[in-house]
Amino acid sequence: MKVVIAPDSFKGSLSAIDVATAIEAGVKKVLPDAQTVLVPVADGGEGTMDSLVAATRGRQVNVTVTGPLHTPVQAAYGILGDQVTCVIEMASASGLCLVPSEKRDPLITTTYGTGELIRQALDDGCRRFILGIGGSATNDGGIGMLQALGMKLLDARGESVSFGGAAVENIVSIDDSAFDARIREAEFLIASDVQNPLVGPHGASHVFGPQKGATPEIADRLDRSLSKWADLVEAKTGIRLHELAGAGAAGGIGGAFQAFFPSHMRRGIDIVMEYTQLGKHLENADLVFTGEGQIDFQTASGKTPMGVAQEAQQRGVPVFVLAGSIGRGIDTLYQYGIHSIHSIINAPMTLEEAMKRAPELLAQTAEQVLRTYLARPTNQR
Amino acid sequence: MKVVIAPDSFKGSLSAIDVATAIEAGVKKVLPDAQTVLVPVADGGEGTMDSLVAATRGRQVNVTVTGPLHTPVQAAYGILGDQVTCVIEMASASGLCLVPSEKRDPLITTTYGTGELIRQALDDGCRRFILGIGGSATNDGGIGMLQALGMKLLDARGESVSFGGAAVENIVSIDDSAFDARIREAEFLIASDVQNPLVGPHGASHVFGPQKGATPEIADRLDRSLSKWADLVEAKTGIRLHELAGAGAAGGIGGAFQAFFPSHMRRGIDIVMEYTQLGKHLENADLVFTGEGQIDFQTASGKTPMGVAQEAQQRGVPVFVLAGSIGRGIDTLYQYGIHSIHSIINAPMTLEEAMKRAPELLAQTAEQVLRTYLARPTNQR
Repeated sequence: MKVVIAPDSFKGSLSAIDVATAIEAGVKKVLPDAQTVLVPVADGGEGTMDSLVAATRGRQVNVTVTGPLHTPVQAAYGILGDQVTCVIEMASASGLCLVPSEKRDPLITTTYGTGELIRQALDDGCRRFILGIGGSATNDGGIGMLQALGMKLLDARGESVSFGGAAVENIVSIDDSAFDARIREAEFLIASDVQNPLVGPHGASHVFGPQKGATPEIADRLDRSLSKWADLVEAKTGIRLHELAGAGAAGGIGGAFQAFFPSHMRRGIDIVMEYTQLGKHLENADLVFTGEGQIDFQTASGKTPMGVAQEAQQRGVPVFVLAGSIGRGIDTLYQYGIHSIHSIINAPMTLEEAMKRAPELLAQTAEQVLRTYLARPTNQR
Repeated sequence: MKVVIAPDSFKGSLSAIDVATAIEAGVKKVLPDAQTVLVPVADGGEGTMDSLVAATRGRQVNVTVTGPLHTPVQAAYGILGDQVTCVIEMASASGLCLVPSEKRDPLITTTYGTGELIRQALDDGCRRFILGIGGSATNDGGIGMLQALGMKLLDARGESVSFGGAAVENIVSIDDSAFDARIREAEFLIASDVQNPLVGPHGASHVFGPQKGATPEIADRLDRSLSKWADLVEAKTGIRLHELAGAGAAGGIGGAFQAFFPSHMRRGIDIVMEYTQLGKHLENADLVFTGEGQIDFQTASGKTPMGVAQEAQQRGVPVFVLAGSIGRGIDTLYQYGIHSIHSIINAPMTLEEAMKRAPELLAQTAEQVLRTYLARPTNQR
């Protein structure tokens, strides 16, 4: 029996590979001779680098860069096994996770560090990039990243503007003469599930600004700044970002990629599944375990269990989901190939206890699900 | 598809019939046309009366009797559909649940109310009795019950002794001339999993006395009293209760039944399964759901899921257990016919929340287990 184990991480508790290892222990308890294939998966967000590095036997490179608050942070990118593909999680350099709640302010936060990661990877010889842009703390239209890569964004006095969303409104001209030439030789795959335009009521500032610390007034100001920036970009490149789908991703960095980089956007989970070769692993599988920390109606919008289920469904392989918490609206998930959904919690307990005991609970639940699946009447009817 | 649903109650939360109804809702969500058979089961303890009354379409009779602390309590017994079989849970009249922790004292607590229930049922025409004797608050050797049924237990002055474990040591003679004659025409089936003798280190006082409030000194005193009582019983009846298996059940009431009643003891779960005709319902079943509030290694010693599994195993029917909490040592259970064990808890939560949401959680878990069982690969290999 071949069992594919393709979970996401359980955020705050276990990495995807740790989740997979725990599930494997439960499977082996029932079927010691089962063939298990562990494929840690991510959806383009947290864990994407780990997943792809593990799947391709690549390596991680640690770099100190400028953090979202302009102070140094320790970030990382991955170089995949092919030695030319670089995986960057933008959140590693410019993420909300790096900014304490009380300091969240998209007027200040910058994407500069993300640009530094790209520059370093170019130096390392990488010419293919996978960029996960979820979890950003920024709403700067990507100008920090552009500046880190040599783009000159000048104010009325002809000087480079500063950092953060507040600096965008000062830009009056774009000088790309020193923009890193290696970028034109490279290709950028942007992992994003966000289809929002750059500006307007569905734009970056109004939709995602508030979770990054913007008051309604600040969101208005940022939206006007990005609109002005989009005018400049249009004048420079002919590309109109204002209403462009995906340009509003990650505080407008999606638009910067679309205007200035040889790039295209894909759903994060699809990129991860391609690079982990999940489809190939599923080819002769008997069943799949997947999972994530919380499963609910949102899982349908491109989360890991959903992507895994869609791949498995095409191949007729049953999919069982393990989760820390089961939330509302899971009934919508069965149509996509998920067969059943199980919480690993085995008694009333706190979140803290559940996180501490997660490996044991995952193993126990995987074991029970497999026992149920294998149960067959022994009487002949 | 025929699904038998045979759970125990979830103590403090839902009765067995409510548990069964909730599970049925989950089953019907997956298989609206499934044939479901609801068999609320109990193991001879709490819920036994409800289970047998429901299974036989009997009725419940409410009676005010003397409680364990000599004050009136509202108790009940069941008359089964055959109109002659009475089910009594001793705990209803003489239970630990009727005594606040700080008032637990086996020198005081009496089985008198249990005798009153039997007398009332005899008046109602019952001649077959099923007595569940779990959960008693008493250690009086059953003398209260005997007195309620006309047995004279006299002290050195020729007067009837009082109530409670402390009165036992005062008995010097047994006068059965007024003992209710209808008892000899009746039969008493004692539902008990306890094999302890009446006295000694494995006897009632030392083993079960402490949980009823006995200090080590009180347990010693009670043990000596019961030994003296057993001497009197032996002189009167020729039956030697001292070392007799089961005589130590429920503070020695087990011995009283063995000495003075046409009685035999059986494992509670076996009696319940016989009267609910669980075996017959399982005959052409495709699978069984059972369950209890907490499942752990103790489940193997005659608890409901165990009894249900043993019946099902004989007929080759898969058994799935739903529980509020999964405790330690469940690995020992699979050999008895249990296929898998699932907690209904679907996220970190308190016991209080779990109890409040139990019907919904039961339904969801039953649904997921059934979905897993029904999952089949659709790929053709």
